[in-house]
Amino acid sequence: MASVLSNGGDLPSKPASAGRHAGVYSEVQTSRLDHRLLLPSVLKGAAFKVVDGPGSSAAGNPDEIAKLFPNLFGQPSSMLVPADVSPFETDRKLKVGVVLSGGQAPGGHNVICGIYDYLQEKAKGSTVYGFKGGPAGIMRCKYVALTTDFIYPYRNQGGFDMIRSGRDKIETPEQFKQAEDTVTKLDLDGLVVIGGDDSNTNACLLAENFRRKNMKTKVIGCPKTIDGDLKCKEVPISFGFDTACKIYSEMIGNVMIDARSTGKYYHFVRLMGRAASHITLECALQTHPNITLIGEEVAAKKQTLKNVTDYITDIICKRSERGYNYGVILIPEGLIDFIPEVQQLISELNEILAHDVVDEGGLWKQKLQSQSQLLFELLPQAIQEQLLLERDPHGNVQVAKIETEKMLIQMVEAELEKRTSAGTYKGHFKGQSHFFGYEGRCGLPTNFDATYCYSLGFAAGALLHAGKTGLISSVANLAAPVEEWTVGGTALTAMMDVERRHGKFKPVIKKAMVELDGAPFSKFAALRDEWALNNRYISPGPIQFIGPSSYAANHTLLLELGACA
Amino acid sequence: MASVLSNGGDLPSKPASAGRHAGVYSEVQTSRLDHRLLLPSVLKGAAFKVVDGPGSSAAGNPDEIAKLFPNLFGQPSSMLVPADVSPFETDRKLKVGVVLSGGQAPGGHNVICGIYDYLQEKAKGSTVYGFKGGPAGIMRCKYVALTTDFIYPYRNQGGFDMIRSGRDKIETPEQFKQAEDTVTKLDLDGLVVIGGDDSNTNACLLAENFRRKNMKTKVIGCPKTIDGDLKCKEVPISFGFDTACKIYSEMIGNVMIDARSTGKYYHFVRLMGRAASHITLECALQTHPNITLIGEEVAAKKQTLKNVTDYITDIICKRSERGYNYGVILIPEGLIDFIPEVQQLISELNEILAHDVVDEGGLWKQKLQSQSQLLFELLPQAIQEQLLLERDPHGNVQVAKIETEKMLIQMVEAELEKRTSAGTYKGHFKGQSHFFGYEGRCGLPTNFDATYCYSLGFAAGALLHAGKTGLISSVANLAAPVEEWTVGGTALTAMMDVERRHGKFKPVIKKAMVELDGAPFSKFAALRDEWALNNRYISPGPIQFIGPSSYAANHTLLLELGACA
Repeated sequence: MASVLSNGGDLPSKPASAGRHAGVYSEVQTSRLDHRLLLPSVLKGAAFKVVDGPGSSAAGNPDEIAKLFPNLFGQPSSMLVPADVSPFETDRKLKVGVVLSGGQAPGGHNVICGIYDYLQEKAKGSTVYGFKGGPAGIMRCKYVALTTDFIYPYRNQGGFDMIRSGRDKIETPEQFKQAEDTVTKLDLDGLVVIGGDDSNTNACLLAENFRRKNMKTKVIGCPKTIDGDLKCKEVPISFGFDTACKIYSEMIGNVMIDARSTGKYYHFVRLMGRAASHITLECALQTHPNITLIGEEVAAKKQTLKNVTDYITDIICKRSERGYNYGVILIPEGLIDFIPEVQQLISELNEILAHDVVDEGGLWKQKLQSQSQLLFELLPQAIQEQLLLERDPHGNVQVAKIETEKMLIQMVEAELEKRTSAGTYKGHFKGQSHFFGYEGRCGLPTNFDATYCYSLGFAAGALLHAGKTGLISSVANLAAPVEEWTVGGTALTAMMDVERRHGKFKPVIKKAMVELDGAPFSKFAALRDEWALNNRYISPGPIQFIGPSSYAANHTLLLELGACA
Repeated sequence: MASVLSNGGDLPSKPASAGRHAGVYSEVQTSRLDHRLLLPSVLKGAAFKVVDGPGSSAAGNPDEIAKLFPNLFGQPSSMLVPADVSPFETDRKLKVGVVLSGGQAPGGHNVICGIYDYLQEKAKGSTVYGFKGGPAGIMRCKYVALTTDFIYPYRNQGGFDMIRSGRDKIETPEQFKQAEDTVTKLDLDGLVVIGGDDSNTNACLLAENFRRKNMKTKVIGCPKTIDGDLKCKEVPISFGFDTACKIYSEMIGNVMIDARSTGKYYHFVRLMGRAASHITLECALQTHPNITLIGEEVAAKKQTLKNVTDYITDIICKRSERGYNYGVILIPEGLIDFIPEVQQLISELNEILAHDVVDEGGLWKQKLQSQSQLLFELLPQAIQEQLLLERDPHGNVQVAKIETEKMLIQMVEAELEKRTSAGTYKGHFKGQSHFFGYEGRCGLPTNFDATYCYSLGFAAGALLHAGKTGLISSVANLAAPVEEWTVGGTALTAMMDVERRHGKFKPVIKKAMVELDGAPFSKFAALRDEWALNNRYISPGPIQFIGPSSYAANHTLLLELGACA
């Protein structure tokens, strides 16, 4: 293979025997295969070395983290810096495994290609194994040896179908033993875990375990999740967030033009993101909807479902006075998990449903506390029935199954009927519900995600080459041109805190929630009243891969980096 | 204003005082404003003349059409051909009204811009009025005088928000009188009606009426509908179909990659198109789903809901034997309207619900005929309840409200449970439902739709300039480069047939349904078994506006024109 790096960061050209992929490609997919990827200059150079920073602590409860990770706690983060001569053994062939863990995010394939290309370039003759179907592939030793031909059809493509992903966790002592057996059998020098907060916590536990047993296998994590809730100073963004938000924003923008053209629908759009509301906030910044609900704000203000309904209804009434009987409303998937009174109702319901008979006459409701009774009565009948009838295998109410956008439409309808009767609302209201989710998880990665992921993969390869373990691949300074991006690894233990579960401390990387004093939320909060009553819709249109705007990163990232107003 | 045509067909550049549009534009939207539009060479040339063809007849029942349109019936269609000197009075200033009628379709703004630019170029000093909110704008004489500045922000943009649309019809003698008053008041030489089959029928009735009364106002139609069901030999496609199908196909392609990556979901995707299944067929040709239901085929084969369910379930079982417990299934919005037994059940239910009490014990069901009783029992409980409870203001069952994709998921689940019990199915099934609709109606028009619409508008202007009436703007030879596209007008009466309604003959332009012996369906039918069991997914990706693939038209059009295999 021709040199990857000396080629100015170009991807290797199509191998002669490529094209064995079962799929058929569209013109756009094909055009992406040979898309020229830029690399940070430190990775493009002839050589670089790894410089360690000061010792690290933990995000919280350092004493407990130190006990949980006695072999890793306190280790420094690392930076790659240019060097005249490579300090690494370029003759040494590495054996590296890679696994995709959890839900899909655009760019995962490019991380794998980055690892592969790094090793081909800097440690020729190295081997990369792709574990199939997520962490279960490690435990069951199911893998494929990656080759130039094998990975070519996945370059710059969406999805995780190269080696698939899975949601299994390596948790029990038996499972850790299975992982040890696999990395021993394959004689792995390194393992790269591409995943979210849980998977990177797991990666750190594996790193700690391997080091404790004096095994040679090092473990490096990579930050993946469209939800955007795995990030810190050194890891400014998780990959996939950029692409997913742009796909959702395309759809939202189209629906906005539709709303303005017909003038008769309120579109209630639910967006992915069960924990944090980053996706919803980013889509709001991209499209300027009339109403946006942010879970973290609802929780901080201890809002009730009635508060939320009234907030929406008030704006609908004000808009109607201006002659606008249409609009667009964004709702994060996890909204009702943020409403304290809903949590209370659910826990009471679980208790009652486990022990009591739900009589048709409704006498059972008297067992609810008065606040929960009021809330239950406020809910639309369909939701009431869903709460009582649809339960998970443990008999618990399935909150996740509630279609929040439809529930809100019904609650707003009921409130508007009251106001119509009272003569305070004279408009007409028609709600249309949407859920944008799966469409965004597997799209073709944007130029930003494709480039970012390739660098993350390159960095992971370099960190393993340098013998590092327990770090997460970190590419930063992302508001600058790609050449100036910084590259390194952040100590996973430094990102950790503990949670008490079943009487024991468990290490966790806390999800990065929307910060109400952060730049993205502040900008949104300053503008939302203007967006509410006037129509300031922006329609971002389909993601473009060519042209001046095709490299622009998302608003959240740029605002957090102080790179745009 | 600088010459439009001498400028090689470029759009006029941004006027000095433009930018008064209330919206804020994304980079992609902005980049589209000055997108260079090509024109067929006959429209680019210095001059052209209009050549009439032979006299025409009707699509059916010519005697009745002749009676309904005594002043228009038999008139020839026209072609524009290059000429040395323009035969038109270039000094004559025209007054032309334009109206958008019915649901939105990407490209409508460009039709208006085409009319405007034609008149600015070839009949300088002409006036174009945009009627606001659809045909109601004509009846109420609500309009805006279009200017270069006013229309600029809508060039190549999606939606109908420049002048909005509406679904009102000009039907009663009073309404025809209102239309006469308006065109008289505005002294209109011409009126362009941009709409679907109904709206173009209406346009022809207006043309007939104006001619009968010796009024000077001529009427020209333009073929608009994302459903793709307004077409004939001279009008190979309605605008908006291309863009909408590409937007839906982007989403379907993403969901396919998701399905293949996770390996555990069957995605049931409902697509717009209540009458014809063109959108579903086109999306299938673009993406190669495992299962595609085409309403016209279901009707032709007189399939039952059980047949449809079994067809899906059989493929799911066969795929499961190959280890595939995932897939993608496309369903046209209007599917159940094509199933004869469902129509029968609905009509019996309407009868029973109007006159009888629906007892909880279910005795009322004995009033159903035995086939309808069986069908009713086959339906999932939620659908049964929806049929009984949700009725329109006339008390009729609301078929349109049934979420077909969710109904099919439940029916397939029930059938798979039976097969699991019988030991003939050992897979696991999880259905995910999607409806792609509003997202596609208002997207930024593709290069094809933008160019096609601009030519349609230019042609409409030219036909009015030539004094033509009762024609639909016709741009054909669309598989060739734009320069070679042919331009003309087709007699609307030639596209008409009659339907008997309330004892009277009503003129209709029959919807063009999917032809089961046509090239698009034949290609699909030849490949679908291969797509069913193997995975031949194609992910078209987001619409690109730059690059070699950005001008490719949709498969349906090219196949119908014999331009691709």
